[in-house]
Amino acid sequence: MARQTDFPTNTKKAIAPVYLVGAGPGDPELLTMKAHRLLGEADVVVYDRLVASTILDLVPKGTSRIYVGKAARSHHMVQDEINALLAKLAHAGRTVVRLKGGDPYIFGRGSEEAMFLKQQGVPVRVVPGITAASGCAAALGVPLTERGMATGVRFVTGHRQADGQLDLNWGSLADPDTTLVLYMGLSTIGKITENLIAAGLGKDTPAAAIANGTTAKQRVCVASLAALPDRLSRSGFKAPVLIVIGKVAAYAEKSADNWQSIELAALHHG
Amino acid sequence: MARQTDFPTNTKKAIAPVYLVGAGPGDPELLTMKAHRLLGEADVVVYDRLVASTILDLVPKGTSRIYVGKAARSHHMVQDEINALLAKLAHAGRTVVRLKGGDPYIFGRGSEEAMFLKQQGVPVRVVPGITAASGCAAALGVPLTERGMATGVRFVTGHRQADGQLDLNWGSLADPDTTLVLYMGLSTIGKITENLIAAGLGKDTPAAAIANGTTAKQRVCVASLAALPDRLSRSGFKAPVLIVIGKVAAYAEKSADNWQSIELAALHHG
Repeated sequence: MARQTDFPTNTKKAIAPVYLVGAGPGDPELLTMKAHRLLGEADVVVYDRLVASTILDLVPKGTSRIYVGKAARSHHMVQDEINALLAKLAHAGRTVVRLKGGDPYIFGRGSEEAMFLKQQGVPVRVVPGITAASGCAAALGVPLTERGMATGVRFVTGHRQADGQLDLNWGSLADPDTTLVLYMGLSTIGKITENLIAAGLGKDTPAAAIANGTTAKQRVCVASLAALPDRLSRSGFKAPVLIVIGKVAAYAEKSADNWQSIELAALHHG
Repeated sequence: MARQTDFPTNTKKAIAPVYLVGAGPGDPELLTMKAHRLLGEADVVVYDRLVASTILDLVPKGTSRIYVGKAARSHHMVQDEINALLAKLAHAGRTVVRLKGGDPYIFGRGSEEAMFLKQQGVPVRVVPGITAASGCAAALGVPLTERGMATGVRFVTGHRQADGQLDLNWGSLADPDTTLVLYMGLSTIGKITENLIAAGLGKDTPAAAIANGTTAKQRVCVASLAALPDRLSRSGFKAPVLIVIGKVAAYAEKSADNWQSIELAALHHG
């Protein structure tokens, strides 16, 4: 008691950071060690639709879980509610892990949540995750870059904008020396291939699609660019699907023996 | 003994796969749980220059470690030697983890090793890692995609080709709506910014460079595209350096309080 004044009590408790954590592409073992540690330390885990149940199994039994799965059509409203929920939990003194599929900063809208929280005086820490492109490339046996085949790689989304349009620069995307990775391109793949071919990308360009990549439910479809929409439509694939377009996708065929399930169409007969 | 014929002995022992494992961007906690498990199960870990000593500390004491760090000028010869070494170890019955910085399939030359091993009858399993772009984006507080700012992201290397040229399509790269991430761009950043500006990318485009991202030695430099080469040159940064160019890089300035060390130049006065 005598020395108590040396250790002044802070009446206003510091707010713990909210951790925006990438859950990776699906396989629970592809979580980072940091993500795994934070799940163990959290009071509350707030997660959405793309986080698999096998990943939630890593959350300790006593930890609260809140599902905030988003329906594609009502993004705006629900995102505001998620933001408010995260801020409320943080201000209540809870240690919050906000778990997002893939990587929070690649098509994960992590920065919208981060900016809101900072405006509310809540510190934010972002923990990167294996993005779907990396996870699915490994599962497909397809390098995303390769000397002599692809000098770089680009990621775009096939998701339509609010006005129903695809906001993509086809002339720039139709580059035979860059690997193109499409996130969320299942429903728009017909429009995408049509535009890429019209912009000059070869009809025979190899392409590979993978549904539920890195999980036990993984399925793969390989075809030429021109044939891909029809093959995918007949495959019955459901989201999430990742599509890789470019010379390197030809490796997918050679790696076929690694697949748990496969829809293989010969590249040169598509 | 009586039923021994039901269990025929395979005289030709199956060759265990070589695991090509991504070690992530630098922070040991950004290894995946799978990478960590495999390091514990390996007989031999073969690693190169970009794998930090703090990551090698995760390798159990009794496990052999072989350093195959590559000098930039003698890639070709040394890559052949690495390939041969991996095949020899696998054929000798050792469980081999080939540990590579970042992700094996993004500027990691993983497919060259994988193809060689398959030709030698050695199975290969690729374990993705957090690529530098993801790790450094989180460290910088910079989303790589963002609604209204960047419809996609692309990764290229600033490394010169064998003929001394940069094999890049400047017209396509000078896209204000796509985040550009440069791997290994430190020595060529002057040439790169010059070409991007000549191709139409605004001089005031925000840019952020990060050395030793996600590690305790991390340093950050923020500047306009036009000012970046001079700032970097004065910063004394050494490789590995990752550079992010695009509207989203403006977030790096706002996240400055998260940095361990910072060279901050006002974006609009660069």
